[in-house]
Amino acid sequence: MQMKPRVLLYPCPVALVTCVDEKGAPNIITLAWVGVASSEPPILSIGIRPSRHSFNLISKTKEFVVNIPTAEILEQTDFCGMTSGREVDKFSKTGLTPLEASNVKPPLIKECPVNMECILRQVIELGTHHLFLGEIVSVHIDSEILDEKGNIDYAKANAICYMPEEYWSSGKKIGSYGLAKPEVDLR
Amino acid sequence: MQMKPRVLLYPCPVALVTCVDEKGAPNIITLAWVGVASSEPPILSIGIRPSRHSFNLISKTKEFVVNIPTAEILEQTDFCGMTSGREVDKFSKTGLTPLEASNVKPPLIKECPVNMECILRQVIELGTHHLFLGEIVSVHIDSEILDEKGNIDYAKANAICYMPEEYWSSGKKIGSYGLAKPEVDLR
Repeated sequence: MQMKPRVLLYPCPVALVTCVDEKGAPNIITLAWVGVASSEPPILSIGIRPSRHSFNLISKTKEFVVNIPTAEILEQTDFCGMTSGREVDKFSKTGLTPLEASNVKPPLIKECPVNMECILRQVIELGTHHLFLGEIVSVHIDSEILDEKGNIDYAKANAICYMPEEYWSSGKKIGSYGLAKPEVDLR
Repeated sequence: MQMKPRVLLYPCPVALVTCVDEKGAPNIITLAWVGVASSEPPILSIGIRPSRHSFNLISKTKEFVVNIPTAEILEQTDFCGMTSGREVDKFSKTGLTPLEASNVKPPLIKECPVNMECILRQVIELGTHHLFLGEIVSVHIDSEILDEKGNIDYAKANAICYMPEEYWSSGKKIGSYGLAKPEVDLR
C-alpha cells in the first residue's frame, strides 16, 4: 500500500552524543538519525533539530562524541532523548560516567563500549533537522567487548536497535559480509 | 583502549537501493551507509563510492528507491553488494521482482516490505564515499507487516541489522520511545 512520504528506515543505530558548552559543561543527546557518511576519512552524519540545546553547543564548539549504548542502559538512553540539557544535568541525573576524551573537549561515556570523537566539518540545513558531518579523529573501545582476534563481539556489544518508535535488542548473527557466491544463480 | 580513527557504528540499516540508467535498465546496490538526514521534508542519506556503477546511474538520473530487505533474502542482499551491475543483471540473477514505482523510474523490489522513492537533492563529496541526499516522495509498505493499528510490526518486518562486517537478525522489543520517567532519578 502507498503512503504519505515519511522516513521509514530501520533499524537505526542509537547514539548518545556528548558535547560541551563554551565553559566546558557537558550535555548528552540521544539520536537515532545517525549514519556513516564516508569510510575514509571516517565521517558520521547526525541529524539534530535546531531547537535542541545540543544543536547550539555543537554549532559553537564544533566537537562531539558519538557513544554507542548497550541495552543495559536503555532507560538512561531514553531519558537523554526526552529531556533538555537546558534544564537537567544529564550526567548527574542518569549516573552515567564522563571520561576525558583524547582529542576533543566533550567527554566519553564510560558505560558505552564504543566512543568516536568527532570534529564538525560541515552543517547542511535541510528542514526539521540540520545534518552535522563529523570527522572521527579518535576511537575508544572497551576491551571487554572484543573477541580473541581483537574484533568486536556483537553479542557482548549488546546494541540497541531503534525501530521507530521502539527499542529492540540485537538478535543473532545470521551471516558474514561476502556470504553470497556470485557464481551461483539465486533465482 | 584507544584505536586508529575508523567508523564503528552499529547497527546499520541495510538497504537495497534501486536505480536506472538513461535507457531505463535497472540496477540494485546494497548499502549500509544509510541514515535519516531529516524528518520533514523526509530525507535519507546514502554513501556511495564513486567507482560503483550505481554512483554513475544516480548521478545522472537523480532518482533512487531505498528498499528494506528481510532476513529471508539475505543471500540476495549480500549478492547485490558483492557484484557490479556493469557485469550482471542483478534482478535476473537474484530472482528479485521489480515493481513499477509511483513517482520515479527506478523500480521497487517486491520482496522488500518497505520501499521509499527518492529524488536526489544534493551530493556532498567527502572522501571514499559521496553522500547522496534523497528526498522521499512516496512510500510503499507491504500490508502483511502491519499490525491491526496500521503500524509496522517489526517482528514481521524481519530486518537485517548490519554489524560491520556481519549480518544480524533483529531481536526482541525491549521498550518504547518515551519509556523513561524524567521525574525519577536514575543514578
